[in-house]
Amino acid sequence: MNETMPFPAISDKPALESGTILAPKFNRDGLVTAVVTDHEDGTLLMVAHMNDEALALTLESGIAHFFSRSRQRIWKKGETSGNLQTVEEIRVDCDQDAVWLKVSVAGHQAACHTGRKSCFYRRIEKNEAAGRFALVFDDDTPRFNPRDVYETR
Amino acid sequence: MNETMPFPAISDKPALESGTILAPKFNRDGLVTAVVTDHEDGTLLMVAHMNDEALALTLESGIAHFFSRSRQRIWKKGETSGNLQTVEEIRVDCDQDAVWLKVSVAGHQAACHTGRKSCFYRRIEKNEAAGRFALVFDDDTPRFNPRDVYETR
Repeated sequence: MNETMPFPAISDKPALESGTILAPKFNRDGLVTAVVTDHEDGTLLMVAHMNDEALALTLESGIAHFFSRSRQRIWKKGETSGNLQTVEEIRVDCDQDAVWLKVSVAGHQAACHTGRKSCFYRRIEKNEAAGRFALVFDDDTPRFNPRDVYETR
Repeated sequence: MNETMPFPAISDKPALESGTILAPKFNRDGLVTAVVTDHEDGTLLMVAHMNDEALALTLESGIAHFFSRSRQRIWKKGETSGNLQTVEEIRVDCDQDAVWLKVSVAGHQAACHTGRKSCFYRRIEKNEAAGRFALVFDDDTPRFNPRDVYETR
């Protein structure tokens, strides 16, 4: 791996959109969006970000790595909780500023730090009583207790 | 709709993650990430962004609106091509910086400006011959010709 520049840059739009060269279009923070779905049932598990190193590590190892914006460092997803994500397939979008990972989740099969399978455990619904819109929980079964997994460290 | 501030802001993490109040956490550009999947078969169609106005318009109208970063304006998806997206369900993630739209697509049933159903029409694969990684097309059937739809305008 070329440590200084793992991926080429392509500014030509037709080449970026119609070519076979992986040339991720990192934003001004050096990140692309990563969308993670369950390889088995297609559930949207989480949305995260990758810098060039995280994407290269993911491609090389087959295990999802992201870039934590809050901690400003590489984040091997599931390293603490055991919920590692094995990448079954990875795709890129037309303008190469987003990747789609289809994964199998180890451990508790949970992708959310709240212990739930998916981070998207709340629907947005019209509710005049509670203001204009309210959130409705409909996958509210944590698969692990975050306090057991994270807070003793 | 309150034009100046359609959504409340919540900085308390437990309230943001465990509450029933929609309080999107817009980034420094005033955007959240919007992930759009096909309501019927779950395909990831596209990733885009919403400012507060786009999210409010989407929620009020039931038709997906985004914020175009390149054009810096509200973008009613499909307005030109006819591929409007009707929102069947909308969800928010744990920290409320991403929303998930499950949509039905009108017109050509295409979400990508290249004419394809999905923007994610290329897999990333290991390919030592073509450098380390190469892109492989596997949904390469445009449903409309972008030149007919966009370039005569």
